Amino acid sequence: MVSRTAPTIPLEPPPRSLASDNAAGAHPAVLEAVVAANTGHALAYGEDAHTARCEEQFSDLFGRDVVTRLTFNGTGANVAAFASMMGALRGPHHAIVCSSWAHANSDEAGAPERVLSTKLIDIPSDDAKLTTGHLLELASLQGSPHHAQPGIVSLTQPTELGTLYSADEVAALCDRAHEMGLLVHLDGARIANATAALGGTREALRSFTTAAGVDVLSFGGTKNGLLGADAVVFLNTDVAMGSEYVRKQVTQLSSKMRYLAAQFTAVLTDDLWIDLGARANARARELHDRVTTIPGVDAGQPPAVNSIYPLLAPEMIAPLQAWSFFWDWDPSRHQVRWMTSWDTTPEDVATFAAGVAAVAEG
Amino acid sequence: MVSRTAPTIPLEPPPRSLASDNAAGAHPAVLEAVVAANTGHALAYGEDAHTARCEEQFSDLFGRDVVTRLTFNGTGANVAAFASMMGALRGPHHAIVCSSWAHANSDEAGAPERVLSTKLIDIPSDDAKLTTGHLLELASLQGSPHHAQPGIVSLTQPTELGTLYSADEVAALCDRAHEMGLLVHLDGARIANATAALGGTREALRSFTTAAGVDVLSFGGTKNGLLGADAVVFLNTDVAMGSEYVRKQVTQLSSKMRYLAAQFTAVLTDDLWIDLGARANARARELHDRVTTIPGVDAGQPPAVNSIYPLLAPEMIAPLQAWSFFWDWDPSRHQVRWMTSWDTTPEDVATFAAGVAAVAEG
Amino acid sequence: MVSRTAPTIPLEPPPRSLASDNAAGAHPAVLEAVVAANTGHALAYGEDAHTARCEEQFSDLFGRDVVTRLTFNGTGANVAAFASMMGALRGPHHAIVCSSWAHANSDEAGAPERVLSTKLIDIPSDDAKLTTGHLLELASLQGSPHHAQPGIVSLTQPTELGTLYSADEVAALCDRAHEMGLLVHLDGARIANATAALGGTREALRSFTTAAGVDVLSFGGTKNGLLGADAVVFLNTDVAMGSEYVRKQVTQLSSKMRYLAAQFTAVLTDDLWIDLGARANARARELHDRVTTIPGVDAGQPPAVNSIYPLLAPEMIAPLQAWSFFWDWDPSRHQVRWMTSWDTTPEDVATFAAGVAAVAEG
Amino acid sequence: MVSRTAPTIPLEPPPRSLASDNAAGAHPAVLEAVVAANTGHALAYGEDAHTARCEEQFSDLFGRDVVTRLTFNGTGANVAAFASMMGALRGPHHAIVCSSWAHANSDEAGAPERVLSTKLIDIPSDDAKLTTGHLLELASLQGSPHHAQPGIVSLTQPTELGTLYSADEVAALCDRAHEMGLLVHLDGARIANATAALGGTREALRSFTTAAGVDVLSFGGTKNGLLGADAVVFLNTDVAMGSEYVRKQVTQLSSKMRYLAAQFTAVLTDDLWIDLGARANARARELHDRVTTIPGVDAGQPPAVNSIYPLLAPEMIAPLQAWSFFWDWDPSRHQVRWMTSWDTTPEDVATFAAGVAAVAEG
Repeated sequence: MVSRTAPTIPLEPPPRSLASDNAAGAHPAVLEAVVAANTGHALAYGEDAHTARCEEQFSDLFGRDVVTRLTFNGTGANVAAFASMMGALRGPHHAIVCSSWAHANSDEAGAPERVLSTKLIDIPSDDAKLTTGHLLELASLQGSPHHAQPGIVSLTQPTELGTLYSADEVAALCDRAHEMGLLVHLDGARIANATAALGGTREALRSFTTAAGVDVLSFGGTKNGLLGADAVVFLNTDVAMGSEYVRKQVTQLSSKMRYLAAQFTAVLTDDLWIDLGARANARARELHDRVTTIPGVDAGQPPAVNSIYPLLAPEMIAPLQAWSFFWDWDPSRHQVRWMTSWDTTPEDVATFAAGVAAVAEG
Repeated sequence: MVSRTAPTIPLEPPPRSLASDNAAGAHPAVLEAVVAANTGHALAYGEDAHTARCEEQFSDLFGRDVVTRLTFNGTGANVAAFASMMGALRGPHHAIVCSSWAHANSDEAGAPERVLSTKLIDIPSDDAKLTTGHLLELASLQGSPHHAQPGIVSLTQPTELGTLYSADEVAALCDRAHEMGLLVHLDGARIANATAALGGTREALRSFTTAAGVDVLSFGGTKNGLLGADAVVFLNTDVAMGSEYVRKQVTQLSSKMRYLAAQFTAVLTDDLWIDLGARANARARELHDRVTTIPGVDAGQPPAVNSIYPLLAPEMIAPLQAWSFFWDWDPSRHQVRWMTSWDTTPEDVATFAAGVAAVAEG
Repeated sequence: MVSRTAPTIPLEPPPRSLASDNAAGAHPAVLEAVVAANTGHALAYGEDAHTARCEEQFSDLFGRDVVTRLTFNGTGANVAAFASMMGALRGPHHAIVCSSWAHANSDEAGAPERVLSTKLIDIPSDDAKLTTGHLLELASLQGSPHHAQPGIVSLTQPTELGTLYSADEVAALCDRAHEMGLLVHLDGARIANATAALGGTREALRSFTTAAGVDVLSFGGTKNGLLGADAVVFLNTDVAMGSEYVRKQVTQLSSKMRYLAAQFTAVLTDDLWIDLGARANARARELHDRVTTIPGVDAGQPPAVNSIYPLLAPEMIAPLQAWSFFWDWDPSRHQVRWMTSWDTTPEDVATFAAGVAAVAEG
Repeated sequence: MVSRTAPTIPLEPPPRSLASDNAAGAHPAVLEAVVAANTGHALAYGEDAHTARCEEQFSDLFGRDVVTRLTFNGTGANVAAFASMMGALRGPHHAIVCSSWAHANSDEAGAPERVLSTKLIDIPSDDAKLTTGHLLELASLQGSPHHAQPGIVSLTQPTELGTLYSADEVAALCDRAHEMGLLVHLDGARIANATAALGGTREALRSFTTAAGVDVLSFGGTKNGLLGADAVVFLNTDVAMGSEYVRKQVTQLSSKMRYLAAQFTAVLTDDLWIDLGARANARARELHDRVTTIPGVDAGQPPAVNSIYPLLAPEMIAPLQAWSFFWDWDPSRHQVRWMTSWDTTPEDVATFAAGVAAVAEG
């Protein structure tokens, strides 16, 4: 998959590449919490004190009683969320509406269709955001037995293109969706980066979730310093009915739940999770600043969150990838993706930018 | 779920209960391996050195090139295995044959049907074992368009009732299944306990898997000292075609795969996994020995693996559960389950047996 | 599939065999109605006058406003019924409980699992009937996330073994099911034969359906003189929500619905459908009377509806099948099935019995 | 759904509206064949002489041994076809590629996703046709475990917008698809109209099916003078493996198959089916000729098959619909659909056009 040519840059590459926040390790506090949770026996499947504490932390975070179901990964969180929401909608004939860029549509190998047997209505969108206008167009499907009925709107925040919905935009989408009888899901695989970008506080988080009217949230942990854990958070607890069975049915019930819970507890404590998101965002901005003037690099707009999608002079790409790997984004445009993570350091950014400059001068 | 009455036993309960091997913690070597794997960045989704090493270890273990797909849990391993096997069978009209006691039938909340949309043909069996006679009876379904066609036989080793297939029995079942055009899956959620019981060597493992003709194996780790990881091992690599896509589609692809791989590496090194299984088995035998003569306890046959299912005098159950929790098994018969794990100590067993005796003396 | 040996019986076989009521043709009134409906254009998908009239007839039949959805066949009716019921249950984690003999479990090639992705809990039953005791045993599954939650009880009336529930038995099952939070489906693929056997009136029909508390009914037409049409009748109209979409989604929406509706209208008029069921039942009783004293024939109890399951002397079976085909039932017991239909005549029965006698005299 | 305002046109509307070919009745030869098939008993589920004859006719039609599975309707044919093709592809991780206009994507209420649990990749296309360029773009998905793997290309001929693929275009798509490892399905719900338009002979049919490399065909009957029957025709018989089970599993196996077979036999005899398609096409061309010069009507290009999609002056639409119903197509553009059928007469067309002119003169 990943072919490498001989490096041509006379610098050591940064210890942490810009390939993906999925390539980053776990934060030390997370590992410590897992080790600390490993004392003696605990009842399985979430009937333990660690899980209870974690669930309380989520209710504290949102300032209301929410129902939290921990899962192994983000695809699992999305699928478990959708499955419970489909139940709440009363009927298997409902469809999930999302942007064609949505992870659930494009990067989950068809898991929603496989597990839920449900149609995804994917709407083309240049910036990966949905609008109330998109929802209005779906009204023509409503009431016809020949069409799967729109049932869930799934937004991603930040989107798969690194764009952000404002709190007002999410609220307007929720209002329109609810008027039309739809439920709203928010895929927050990188919700820490969105929260950091929109204010960096719990109030910022609540502004585009609970206050905006989102029903169910996939709250990402894996990409933000955990070993591997995500959560389905039912902000609208009516929708949570049956979610304990559904999670098991979609293969996402951990027997040794304490180890998932401990990971989240580590980052929910003192809002470390927001801090980690802010670090990644800051590094992406620094990177943008450093490369934007390098010849052969069209860095685009400053990043909203933790990735930039520069256009490069074609001959620069292979040597740079050979030196410090990153992924292509749109090969037809010579566009690549550089993504920072919670542990990217200013030195990593400086080194990487120096490498870019070296190749550009090549 | 778990009601507790006031304890009446003048002893401290054992630090590690006999509730479940799922209640046990992780082995120190496992935690150390996870911590050691947490150095810098690694490509996600299994394209890392830890995963490569773990996959090699599985091939070494079986003495042949196998295809290994790590998963988060046992239900996920079973579902991912079945999904790939259904593909190899060419056609969605196949069914999975299993004992009615099978975990996939009874304890996975309908995950196989949900994810695979596939019928389970569950065969009543007193000892949770299938026989070649059971398979023969299915021949009457073959060829009729009114019946889902038997496609997969799923055996559990050890079974959900703690019984064992001999290597010869597995081989006979595989031969019959293959003659009938079926593939064979072995659910080894507790394969360490089976391996320990049948000889405690790699040869013992191979005798009832590769040598017997099993096509695909769910190789359990979670119940045997891991934080949480299981593996689908394709012994018949023809069946593995497409398994890398299928794992993602059934939500079981970990982005930070190195942490799953490191756990397995810890226990596969020097066959620690067999040793851990042997410890649990030994504790169950000790427990059986200690309680078998206590009045009010019908301990049944000595255990094959790591659990016993005694019948108790009815008035004994609640006080014992209040003192050191365990699960009911068949309330109509006052039957309970006592299960040991890799970390159960001889002292735990002695203390628990003393508690039983104390309750029996009333 | 059907092997034939040289006939040895010196009689012409009956023009209508006893193979199956599915082998019978359509009643002349049904064909006339279809021809009469073929005048000019009519809006598709049920927005036509024929369908409206048919739906009214079903409400008249049950003496209340029911929701009727016509389907192509019985498997389609069952699947469409289950799909709507699953929606009403709010959640994909529910299971369908039925006898292991149930058509939905044994003779639909796994269609319920395929289309609904839902677990069937099949309960062994000697007479193919479920009891309130069976339901009580399921209570132990309720509340555990490891088990698909019982959601639908599906009864068949008459059963696949030709037995009948009394109205009181159905009522007791409905009461118990509703107390436990389950919905009740009744598979009436041969409901005409049951209605005829239990009184032969609309009141008889209502006694074991609406009055007993059945929520949803598969009302069979195909086996009772139609070209091919069955109906899902929602006696509990709350459950019908979304059924117009679900029918399409499970591939059972006919574009030229008038031709299905006209078939049902033909037999619902003047309760012809009950008369047809009564004819088939009468012929089965006559057959039983005629063969019960023939040597080599163990005819069993007199039939409740339109089939008998005699044990035959082994050497009789092949020559009889060669002369006038019928299906084996349980070859290990030399048991066969002889089934009458709406068009079986007394002469057919007499001729067939004479053939049996001729073979017996050998 | 259908609101009607007071008619304002001083003419009797045509006896046969232009609403849909689904609104047309059955051809007399079809009804006669069904009546003729209704003689005595016949083995169920296709083991009868009528079905055998029909299957032979399909092999004759294509000039090779094909496998034919009759179904109840077009959605059922598509779903049954896809299900068998998914089996042939070995693995549930495959997706179906189609135009976003495809009936399977837009007008089957999510049946493919519901029944097959399979992702549809719907490609935006102005003329509802796919191109080899579309397929090339999919190559980027191949090999990545994060994406459902393209497995089936489904073309519609004629498309849902009334456009046609040339035989060369189909052949090029088949070549490209096969090179990429995909199978090709052709949805021929209106294949008679396509065949008539492309030459009106069996050779014309073969040119864009067997000769072009199509693997599986949904051969429509319902829209072309049948009471209700469609067929899955496996031109590539390797793909037919298991199709007899799959058809039952997707609820499309008719017990009284002879009545479906007789309908097809009626129109396959002497290629009546092509003649019926040609009639509908001719009427659409006449209609286009008659209305193209009427003020307020933008009739667009002459029709390829049996429908035109004119843009009307907004105030014309309601009075015309009230007089002789037809469906809106794109309300935002004041576009409607006028569709002819096998039984539309030149007089129907003349009368309808006169009504349009009357409204235009208003």
